[in-house]
Amino acid sequence: MRYKLTIEYDGTPFCGWQKQQGQSSVQESLEKALQTALRHSVELVGSGRTDTGVHALGQVAHFDTEVPVDTYKLRESLNALVRPDPISVRDIVSVPDTFHARFSAKQRAYLYRIQNTRFPPALQNNRVWWFVHPLDEEKMQQAAKILIGKHDLSTFRAAGCQAKSPLKTIDEISVRRVGEEILVEIKARSFLYHQVRNIVGSLVYVGCGKWSISDFESAFKACDRTRGGETAPAHGLYFMSVLY
Amino acid sequence: MRYKLTIEYDGTPFCGWQKQQGQSSVQESLEKALQTALRHSVELVGSGRTDTGVHALGQVAHFDTEVPVDTYKLRESLNALVRPDPISVRDIVSVPDTFHARFSAKQRAYLYRIQNTRFPPALQNNRVWWFVHPLDEEKMQQAAKILIGKHDLSTFRAAGCQAKSPLKTIDEISVRRVGEEILVEIKARSFLYHQVRNIVGSLVYVGCGKWSISDFESAFKACDRTRGGETAPAHGLYFMSVLY
Repeated sequence: MRYKLTIEYDGTPFCGWQKQQGQSSVQESLEKALQTALRHSVELVGSGRTDTGVHALGQVAHFDTEVPVDTYKLRESLNALVRPDPISVRDIVSVPDTFHARFSAKQRAYLYRIQNTRFPPALQNNRVWWFVHPLDEEKMQQAAKILIGKHDLSTFRAAGCQAKSPLKTIDEISVRRVGEEILVEIKARSFLYHQVRNIVGSLVYVGCGKWSISDFESAFKACDRTRGGETAPAHGLYFMSVLY
Repeated sequence: MRYKLTIEYDGTPFCGWQKQQGQSSVQESLEKALQTALRHSVELVGSGRTDTGVHALGQVAHFDTEVPVDTYKLRESLNALVRPDPISVRDIVSVPDTFHARFSAKQRAYLYRIQNTRFPPALQNNRVWWFVHPLDEEKMQQAAKILIGKHDLSTFRAAGCQAKSPLKTIDEISVRRVGEEILVEIKARSFLYHQVRNIVGSLVYVGCGKWSISDFESAFKACDRTRGGETAPAHGLYFMSVLY
């Protein structure tokens, strides 16, 4: 039987989703909890990796087991077993064997939070990117819209990206101000390495007036990472949900 | 010259607002930063104490100095000096000598956040009270409304309260559900010790069905702390703002 987990975590103390020798990862913490609960070793397949410091409200993963599972009780057990790690299993459901957390995904949604205030965050430390200079979210939104559709996104692709092609389709992207924050939401089937953080870094150049919208467009069309803005920090990024 | 500070903090690592021998407090951290910035010792007068773990988005405090102050630069300095403590000075303004952070206050606003989900918080650890059993926010709101006006609030008054009288006037109180959270907002000129947390603890009894609304009313009218609900945990409470 295959089960699908929906997982929330605070990325701050982890090297990221993926297991890494000698480091603390979300995957390893959950696999250990599953092994304790099910009494056999479990491989958890995530819908995608997240970097050190990146948060999740809706990471998805699947695992297989022959052990009879009461999904309700298993969730309670896992949430007790992972403590004090800041991980929470929001939901567990049984899925067909054809379901694959990574390969069945039709769309992934990310949120990037920027606190745009003169004063630094206190309560939102490690939860937002603090950006001091005033940002024009309407210009950022105009620039962002240029990216919608299927494009070569080499300008926003980090070194070490394992994707075969720099061509990706962005389904939706929006920039809006909510109170003291600028929120950037991006939806796509899949993403290049650091794509969201690199897009946000370039949008912020537009927002603070360092770049015009046409500077942004030129950088994007150059298909050259060295033409893009800086990489926005990991701790403003949230993996929100996966659509199957 | 007298200056008014508006202060945000994550209450988790502090013994509270107030200085205490051998413990880490918000007041002490800010007084040290002020002393470094102004080169003389400073007494910071807060609008009210907060307990260990209680957060603030809009604590207010004042101090006096003869040193010429550029409020904009002082804010930048203080925010650099208090690091890595999770404190942020949101605003500094010059005020008349008649202004007193505590005694001039006309109204204080508190917010209490309850995460009402089967799964525990991960990203909101230490930021919300996690309450597993489903809460009926409409019943909680009906019960809360009974408290509006001037009443003897002994049922919600903790031992050790230094107020002369248990009579307090609640200006506004509301309970509403926003997504996965129940938010309780209370506004009053002043509060008894643990008043908000004790009110929330009793409202939750109504919300989860342990008490009817008339049970709540009887407990309130008994003017007896032993008749009230449990004290809600500190880490769900936010000191939001002060009106002068």
